[in-house]
Amino acid sequence: MELFYSPELNENQSVVKLEEEEFHHLSKVLRVRLGDVIYLTNGNGLIAKAELINKSRQFCEIKILNLQKFQRRKTKFIALVPILKQEERFEFALEKLTEFGIDEIQPFFSDRTIKKNFRFDRAKKILITAIKQSFNPFLPELKSPIEFKKFISELSYNDIVIYGDIKGTKILELKSSLLKPELERIILTVGPEGAFSEQELNSLINMNAIPVWLGEFRLRSETAIISLVSQVKIFFD
Amino acid sequence: MELFYSPELNENQSVVKLEEEEFHHLSKVLRVRLGDVIYLTNGNGLIAKAELINKSRQFCEIKILNLQKFQRRKTKFIALVPILKQEERFEFALEKLTEFGIDEIQPFFSDRTIKKNFRFDRAKKILITAIKQSFNPFLPELKSPIEFKKFISELSYNDIVIYGDIKGTKILELKSSLLKPELERIILTVGPEGAFSEQELNSLINMNAIPVWLGEFRLRSETAIISLVSQVKIFFD
Repeated sequence: MELFYSPELNENQSVVKLEEEEFHHLSKVLRVRLGDVIYLTNGNGLIAKAELINKSRQFCEIKILNLQKFQRRKTKFIALVPILKQEERFEFALEKLTEFGIDEIQPFFSDRTIKKNFRFDRAKKILITAIKQSFNPFLPELKSPIEFKKFISELSYNDIVIYGDIKGTKILELKSSLLKPELERIILTVGPEGAFSEQELNSLINMNAIPVWLGEFRLRSETAIISLVSQVKIFFD
Repeated sequence: MELFYSPELNENQSVVKLEEEEFHHLSKVLRVRLGDVIYLTNGNGLIAKAELINKSRQFCEIKILNLQKFQRRKTKFIALVPILKQEERFEFALEKLTEFGIDEIQPFFSDRTIKKNFRFDRAKKILITAIKQSFNPFLPELKSPIEFKKFISELSYNDIVIYGDIKGTKILELKSSLLKPELERIILTVGPEGAFSEQELNSLINMNAIPVWLGEFRLRSETAIISLVSQVKIFFD
């Protein structure tokens, strides 16, 4: 079962055209042939079962056989992810968060950020590859990096922020705080390498952010965010 | 706070010698100086606060200032991890499992394993680096790879096996099965790329292994094992 990404797929279409990278992936990497059945997603809740009906050297055409529409989780999950010194660790986190079905990814710079490189297009490609791999019909919204304190200061008081912290609460004790039907957004975050600065921690405390204990050992940032999201998800899956 | 690994550290020692890689890491990478305070672990429950008292070109000597002894979790966690086609993904899983404090790592070959490369020494180094990074005093026991069905067939009926499966139970419903005081070992596993073979699934079913639902999307193997361990841990942390 192979899933391809086409943002132009919608509920009224009968034929979708794939070009450039998606075409290359279909044609050269996976060698899909005329008549083969594949799947398409628009990254916005639609998955179509489809058939390859036409293939040229530059593009191909895919006929929609049937369409399934998925509903988003009512509470939106936003991962507030530190930009890391080693890009591969940051990218690994992006991939895993997408596999877990996070709704939005907001990379951040901390007072402690060592290396401020962030490649938006490269990050977006990782997200697209991960939704295809995991058959996730929702492409996470990828935001441009922001200063941590700026992001926190702009939150609404309806937002819940959860962050990994050695003095935090056990996740099982948070069930009732998280499973509120009116809760629209949960922001999940962890410190960068070298941890949050004192000012950043204060901004979290001022927001009544909830510290969560992620275990007895010192986790790398990407491990911590993956673990936090994986654990919070148990109340929503 | 830097932690170094010295398997020879024990409760009766006052001075420990570091050579080769650990010496290189201390001396050349982290540039620790005479009089600096560092930490040592033997990977078997001891963490010593210590001071660098002597440094030559080939080795250094570290004086133990005080020693802390950690107790192992009563229930042993064993990760039965598929060897993956992309070594970096397998190694990422090893690192994360070590950060989470897994007790034993048993790599396995499946009927579906594509590429059978496993480098024991390289894997062991990843485990050592990860305990140092995460201040975990317990180096996971690394086993040589084994055929999946062979491993399962040799288990005792006291062992609980939990595996990721799309038709599985929600993790929150497993609390009472897992939190039994007499439970000595929990084996946690997930399928390789391409999933378990039918024979492998049958061997799990014959063992009364418990399928766990890891969410609605198709997770990569390394994501699935990280997620499974991270979620089971919430009952034990």
